Amino acid sequence: MKIGLLGCGTVGGALVALLDQEGDRLARLLGEPLEIGRILVRDPEKERVAPISKDLLTTQLSDVIDDGEIGLVVELLGPGDFALGAIRAALGAKKSVVTANKEILSTHFLELELAAEAASRDIFFEAAVAGGIPLIRALRVSLFGERLSRIVGIVNGTTNYILTKMQEEHISLDTALAEAQQLGYAEADPSGDLSGRDAASKLAIIASIAFGSHVDVEDVNVDGIWGITPSDFDFAERSGGVIKLLAQAERDIDDPDAPIRVEVFPAIVMSTHPLASVRGSFNAVFVEGSAVGQLMFSGPGAGGLPTASAVLADIIDAIKNLRTSTRASMSMVTDTRFVEDSSIDAVFALSVDVADAPGVLSQVSEVFGHHLVSIARMEQDELDGELAHLVFLTHRTRLSAIKATMAELADLDVIERSHKLLRVLE
Amino acid sequence: MKIGLLGCGTVGGALVALLDQEGDRLARLLGEPLEIGRILVRDPEKERVAPISKDLLTTQLSDVIDDGEIGLVVELLGPGDFALGAIRAALGAKKSVVTANKEILSTHFLELELAAEAASRDIFFEAAVAGGIPLIRALRVSLFGERLSRIVGIVNGTTNYILTKMQEEHISLDTALAEAQQLGYAEADPSGDLSGRDAASKLAIIASIAFGSHVDVEDVNVDGIWGITPSDFDFAERSGGVIKLLAQAERDIDDPDAPIRVEVFPAIVMSTHPLASVRGSFNAVFVEGSAVGQLMFSGPGAGGLPTASAVLADIIDAIKNLRTSTRASMSMVTDTRFVEDSSIDAVFALSVDVADAPGVLSQVSEVFGHHLVSIARMEQDELDGELAHLVFLTHRTRLSAIKATMAELADLDVIERSHKLLRVLE
Ligand SMILES: NC(=O)c1ccc[n+]([C@@H]2O[C@H](COP(=O)([O-])OP(=O)(O)OC[C@H]3O[C@@H](n4cnc5c(N)ncnc54)[C@H](OP(=O)(O)O)[C@@H]3O)[C@@H](O)[C@H]2O)c1
Ligand SMILES: NC(=O)c1ccc[n+]([C@@H]2O[C@H](COP(=O)([O-])OP(=O)(O)OC[C@H]3O[C@@H](n4cnc5c(N)ncnc54)[C@H](OP(=O)(O)O)[C@@H]3O)[C@@H](O)[C@H]2O)c1
Repeated sequence: MKIGLLGCGTVGGALVALLDQEGDRLARLLGEPLEIGRILVRDPEKERVAPISKDLLTTQLSDVIDDGEIGLVVELLGPGDFALGAIRAALGAKKSVVTANKEILSTHFLELELAAEAASRDIFFEAAVAGGIPLIRALRVSLFGERLSRIVGIVNGTTNYILTKMQEEHISLDTALAEAQQLGYAEADPSGDLSGRDAASKLAIIASIAFGSHVDVEDVNVDGIWGITPSDFDFAERSGGVIKLLAQAERDIDDPDAPIRVEVFPAIVMSTHPLASVRGSFNAVFVEGSAVGQLMFSGPGAGGLPTASAVLADIIDAIKNLRTSTRASMSMVTDTRFVEDSSIDAVFALSVDVADAPGVLSQVSEVFGHHLVSIARMEQDELDGELAHLVFLTHRTRLSAIKATMAELADLDVIERSHKLLRVLE
Repeated sequence: MKIGLLGCGTVGGALVALLDQEGDRLARLLGEPLEIGRILVRDPEKERVAPISKDLLTTQLSDVIDDGEIGLVVELLGPGDFALGAIRAALGAKKSVVTANKEILSTHFLELELAAEAASRDIFFEAAVAGGIPLIRALRVSLFGERLSRIVGIVNGTTNYILTKMQEEHISLDTALAEAQQLGYAEADPSGDLSGRDAASKLAIIASIAFGSHVDVEDVNVDGIWGITPSDFDFAERSGGVIKLLAQAERDIDDPDAPIRVEVFPAIVMSTHPLASVRGSFNAVFVEGSAVGQLMFSGPGAGGLPTASAVLADIIDAIKNLRTSTRASMSMVTDTRFVEDSSIDAVFALSVDVADAPGVLSQVSEVFGHHLVSIARMEQDELDGELAHLVFLTHRTRLSAIKATMAELADLDVIERSHKLLRVLE
């Protein structure tokens, strides 16, 4: 049985190289070689780093789908309808599918799971969520019996790289971004990462599995890292923490049918928390279950080889299942309910620059009072002669209340500027 | 198909409680209930916390082994020949086995794997190594295709609890141990933990799987935490680190048949290293592979419920395999070779109390010179008027050389006392 490979870019190329290098060893371990039967690309003439024989290349999807020798299709094309169609076609042709495609899974998870079930084949996607970290299999198999209450983690390497730079070198977001782009840690168009959308896609997949309930990327309440300034880092540091972009899924542990809460947000993470020390492009995910307590998984969240390693694990698992005519089952609830945005509650850090004049603080405080937002701590810095920088740390409060507070504050004459709203990880 | 439970103590009792609490949910997920058919104990009259119907209890192993309805045996008895015999009998009767028994696995791993293979059944042991952390399944499945070079971690919660106390409260080993015993973190006889033997058992199992090669606990080069003093912590702190008991398995990544190096030793771990922040009874394990790079797994290393959670994961996996008449395969190399103790090399911290007299330092340094041990850094503290405390940090050197150095130093008249030898985690 052969593998059909769709896409041979960063991850696909690394996979070809990995199979080439580890081939003999894997053949010994598995009792048969892992052989690539066909590789779909856009441009067969392109120079490729991986050791590829030209006659494997094709530009026709049907060359892969219609090949009876190919029992397993590995989709590494990237976002878009073409890749979605290719996965559907592969499952339709009763081939198992391995994919790293977070965009597609975060929107079509349930459809594709059901298609795989109908075909009695597997769809595996370890590489779609946290690069080389074997999180999906841990959730699907090792933690299958656990009642999970919460998953929180750093699942976007680009933003974590940028935030780490800002923290360690006291530089602006723009400077850190430019550096990340130069080093290849951020793409030319970084908006998917910086807006939190990429993390939200991954979170949707994680939450779907953790709660056995379909979560779409659109269900995720998302805030990204645009607008974070060095002064936010100063405040975080004085509070004993650092700023991280977190993805979090929660559910009331005592009620298996409770609504799910899924969010991506920048937060102040206390230095004693293990997530605070996750640096650079690394990823780390905390999982909390009723019996097991707290687990943490961390490792490289992206990169050709680590991602190819996760793809390889899926390939091996899928091939073992094909051999024994079994498949990994999922049990999905389809009528997922979500916590309403407005009822989300947390501790927030909110800062504003105000005119440095008597009575301003009471004016600002009054606005918090209107919305019943209780203040746990306030700090005031002089910015220059005329402006002061106020930071408020709230008690646990509703997101809707803090947003209403921000809106009313923005209308005050004394407010010069509102800063990024930050969550505090408790 | 029913489960036969051997032992109903801390872990077995927690498992019964967990199955009781999660039973309905699991039955829905699995399509059939997970039912315990029989429970073997020593004393059926004993008061038990878990909700157990008395007529399930038996004191006869044969009541479990000969029960045709029981397809899966869960062994949670503890060390000893009785448990070993029970596992053999269960596999002999073609029942799959789930066990948490590190003592037995670290000595009879290969025999039991082969017996399971002969019976076409599974033997699973997630709970034997790191409590609730799903490490074994990650190594067996997710990292099956990886060429692993190194596994290093904290796998004994008792010693980590004691070392954390010593570090944070500047107390002696004896005081910390007494506290740990009082709180139930250490047993009345703590020697298995403090000697490093418990960590060595776990390491033997981890290494067997990671390298697909049989490693026995006797193959592990072990040093425990006896003899570590607050002044060792002071030195570690001045060096920017903390002291941890590490279990480490290594192999040359470029040679799959290279000898294996397996060791348990106390080490100075730099504060920037993620293992430095693993506190209390938590466990954490680093895994390094050729493609995936560095992964870390952490969580509760012991405790009834977390351990029962890992047992439950194994039960579910084994039952799924029984249903589809498949099993998880292992490929074991039997003629494992080990790196010889004497050729192990590392960076060491060695400290001695000496008479505070002129010429002493040169006398001591000369001994290092004899054994070609090169010194990277030296520190001298006055202890009181007459004694000085010398700490040497070596360059990378052989364990045999440092041991010979220590032996020759012990014979010097000017040496009052040699302290514990510490490794430095690079
Ligand atoms: N890169 C990472 O670190 C990483 C990490 C985790 C997950 N992923 C996911 O892995 C997937 C692949 O990412 P990548 O970085 O490897 O992408 P990439 O470097 O852009 O490679 C895409 C490959 O797909 C081929 N392709 C694209 N559209 C095609 C079409 N319409 N017809 C035929 N071939 C087409 C391209 O062909 P040509 O070579 O001819 O252009 C190329 O070989 C994505 O879903 C991504 O989200 C990537
Ligand atoms: N405790 C942990 O946190 C932990 C963590 C990881 C792994 N483990 C492993 O899990 C296993 C069980 O540990 P545990 O802490 O649950 O032990 P435990 O509390 O001592 O319980 C042992 C149980 O086995 C029964 N038993 C022992 N010898 C027996 C015999 N000869 N015949 C019949 N019954 C016998 C005892 O019966 P009675 O109840 O009648 O005395 C008791 O129910 C051990 O292998 C341990 O290493 C434990």
